[in-house]
Amino acid sequence: MLLRSLREEVLEANLELVRRGLAIFTWGNASGISRTDGLVAIKPSGVPYETMKPEDLVITDLDGRVVEGSLRPSSDLPTHLVLYRCFPSIGGVVHTHSNYATSWAQAGRDIPCLGTTHADHFYGPVPVTRPLDPHDIEGAYEENTGKVIVERFRGIDPAHVPAVLVAGHGPFCWGESAMAAARNAVILEEVARMAYQTILLNQSAGPISSALLDKHFLRKHGPGATYGQK
Amino acid sequence: MLLRSLREEVLEANLELVRRGLAIFTWGNASGISRTDGLVAIKPSGVPYETMKPEDLVITDLDGRVVEGSLRPSSDLPTHLVLYRCFPSIGGVVHTHSNYATSWAQAGRDIPCLGTTHADHFYGPVPVTRPLDPHDIEGAYEENTGKVIVERFRGIDPAHVPAVLVAGHGPFCWGESAMAAARNAVILEEVARMAYQTILLNQSAGPISSALLDKHFLRKHGPGATYGQK
Amino acid sequence: MLLRSLREEVLEANLELVRRGLAIFTWGNASGISRTDGLVAIKPSGVPYETMKPEDLVITDLDGRVVEGSLRPSSDLPTHLVLYRCFPSIGGVVHTHSNYATSWAQAGRDIPCLGTTHADHFYGPVPVTRPLDPHDIEGAYEENTGKVIVERFRGIDPAHVPAVLVAGHGPFCWGESAMAAARNAVILEEVARMAYQTILLNQSAGPISSALLDKHFLRKHGPGATYGQK
Amino acid sequence: MLLRSLREEVLEANLELVRRGLAIFTWGNASGISRTDGLVAIKPSGVPYETMKPEDLVITDLDGRVVEGSLRPSSDLPTHLVLYRCFPSIGGVVHTHSNYATSWAQAGRDIPCLGTTHADHFYGPVPVTRPLDPHDIEGAYEENTGKVIVERFRGIDPAHVPAVLVAGHGPFCWGESAMAAARNAVILEEVARMAYQTILLNQSAGPISSALLDKHFLRKHGPGATYGQK
Repeated sequence: MLLRSLREEVLEANLELVRRGLAIFTWGNASGISRTDGLVAIKPSGVPYETMKPEDLVITDLDGRVVEGSLRPSSDLPTHLVLYRCFPSIGGVVHTHSNYATSWAQAGRDIPCLGTTHADHFYGPVPVTRPLDPHDIEGAYEENTGKVIVERFRGIDPAHVPAVLVAGHGPFCWGESAMAAARNAVILEEVARMAYQTILLNQSAGPISSALLDKHFLRKHGPGATYGQK
Repeated sequence: MLLRSLREEVLEANLELVRRGLAIFTWGNASGISRTDGLVAIKPSGVPYETMKPEDLVITDLDGRVVEGSLRPSSDLPTHLVLYRCFPSIGGVVHTHSNYATSWAQAGRDIPCLGTTHADHFYGPVPVTRPLDPHDIEGAYEENTGKVIVERFRGIDPAHVPAVLVAGHGPFCWGESAMAAARNAVILEEVARMAYQTILLNQSAGPISSALLDKHFLRKHGPGATYGQK
Repeated sequence: MLLRSLREEVLEANLELVRRGLAIFTWGNASGISRTDGLVAIKPSGVPYETMKPEDLVITDLDGRVVEGSLRPSSDLPTHLVLYRCFPSIGGVVHTHSNYATSWAQAGRDIPCLGTTHADHFYGPVPVTRPLDPHDIEGAYEENTGKVIVERFRGIDPAHVPAVLVAGHGPFCWGESAMAAARNAVILEEVARMAYQTILLNQSAGPISSALLDKHFLRKHGPGATYGQK
Repeated sequence: MLLRSLREEVLEANLELVRRGLAIFTWGNASGISRTDGLVAIKPSGVPYETMKPEDLVITDLDGRVVEGSLRPSSDLPTHLVLYRCFPSIGGVVHTHSNYATSWAQAGRDIPCLGTTHADHFYGPVPVTRPLDPHDIEGAYEENTGKVIVERFRGIDPAHVPAVLVAGHGPFCWGESAMAAARNAVILEEVARMAYQTILLNQSAGPISSALLDKHFLRKHGPGATYGQK
């Protein structure tokens, strides 16, 4: 069996979505990539999390051809593949319909950076894409979803803002690995919830200062990071 | 004992309501129908979920006559029966007072299709009925509740929109089986919650495009479905 | 030991508040009365729920004199006693600071009867008291809290509306027994939550018709009740 | 190993944050002080709660010099130290990004005293600090966070109001011990949640009277306290 340890990590990332309350039934999906092999491991479509095993994951190449696996891959595979192709620094992708992040996506609003919880993980607003137009939808829909995300990230470093809201749909998150992507999905939901509550308390609440944003993001990321035991 | 496997599935569907947090105490009820036999299995009235056994379910015909069972059927039985008689494609019915769906019912508002989570399962808004008038209420109230639902579904295929909000009351859901109806009740609650949060974030949030609605609903339902392993 | 079975039921009612998420730490209190003996069993003040035993409950007479028990009774005892003296039909009282009911109390608003969940259990709005004035507070505060509740219930049958919101404080609930009072506290919280969500969705949502209120309340209460297996 | 029992209590206080849902991943931190020794025990930076042991805690003096421990202390240590130096009556400090308290901090609003739950624990509004200015942030940021808190408490006794909201950041709480501080963090979150819901129900809801505030706070605190078994 190819890529045993990648399969195991991607399985764990999928299960993390259920454990953290980000996915019910067969909703949500996580994938991971081996950049060396140019191969992706992704959740199969519509299979229950409870019984999923590493061998149920589907291995594809970056064009979506199944290399190993007897099940169909998640229908969102083409979106993941666009992200892997266009964001070369990422190692994992997660998609959920988690409650608060999806509500922001449905509201068509960027999540502004209202506090340091946000700033610790996302270096600026979490952007919402434009709505897909009928042409995007009727063609290669899932692939076009990826393209609309990439279009929205012109001028934004995906390593600095590891999440996006697809308008009228929900969040995609990414990270250095599948588990890092799952972790970002958990944090995004927490940040989305607090931003929601903040806006309801104060419609005109504004973003924190760029000095505070820099301080928090750079304390945890990049060469000058001082957080943790590294 | 008649219809053992139907009884077992209907019991499971009832228990699912408790497990998913849609019902407390003895609230909520699920039923299923054997179309071959023209018989319905439904939860007994006011019996605790914790100790309910398949033999406690009540079997009635489509006119509500008890065919087997020593307990009284749920007081909402006549509503279920109207739905079985008027929606011949359905195999199960569930009624709950789940929090968010009931809030929309109390607010007297259709749940608009604000995103793809909704579109994956409901092909358009989840409609709210008109309020029952005094004449509906003082007569055969539970049966009239069913009639008001059917009236609201003129022009809507119940297989496409497997849920309704009874104004000032709460949701009824249905599906191909009792378990499918329970599953739709869970999804309705999730969709209702996200629609609530969306509207609070953006009072003027509008429905997704019909192209996106079609894409998502038809990806999962009908002859062209591509989701899952079928 | 006096009133063993009353003590056991009152202990269960107190524990129910914790199990249902209505009380944390040592918050909340439940009591029950033996009308035959004219004696009340109530939670001791500030004792952890985890280790509470039937013998820790305090037995007092209707004037608040401790008849049995080595611990101090709940500081809210005088409020309970006013309710027992003025509402002769009740057998149990529960006080919590449950989230949604307390929010309505803090907002100084009656909970309107917006749907049938409410109507099944409360025959009309759940009323909020007037704020206590400095004189009420500086004197026999806990007793005056009871008096303000009774004042608010002029013209309302406490058996029909087994709950009140004390302005700026929180709910008191009652019932035929301590467990019935605890059950009403759980239902009040559910009803308060849905009313909150309803009002946020539709500021002008109005109460259900009196025909629907009558139908639901009288289906479950009084001589014409048809719900359950009785 | 120095200060074994202090280490154990501080560990418990940290774990309490997770158990009560106030912290996920490695978020949040609690510390405690031995006033006799002039030494502080604090959570290490970025270590998982699940495997944390008393010996992982870091012991520092009041200037932040590590006296015992092989791990790095929490990056928020300098904030804790300012509070210990300036608020001599406190024995423990807790910092979280708990949902509702953080939302108030992000909204830049004091939490008004809207009810007796608040008044039982906080003698007046829970204040929000001014935003830190770029100079505060680019310098000794964590220490300046402490200084801005102390500045906000001019005229407020920290023993009477054992919590603050740092604008655009989140709450810091304190108490006689690390466990008391953790307990105050739990209560603050509960109070913040109910205040949020109250304001959404009634934008003009005002604080309770000073008579009621006095009654509740002084019933539980200070020489005249009557609550509990003391």
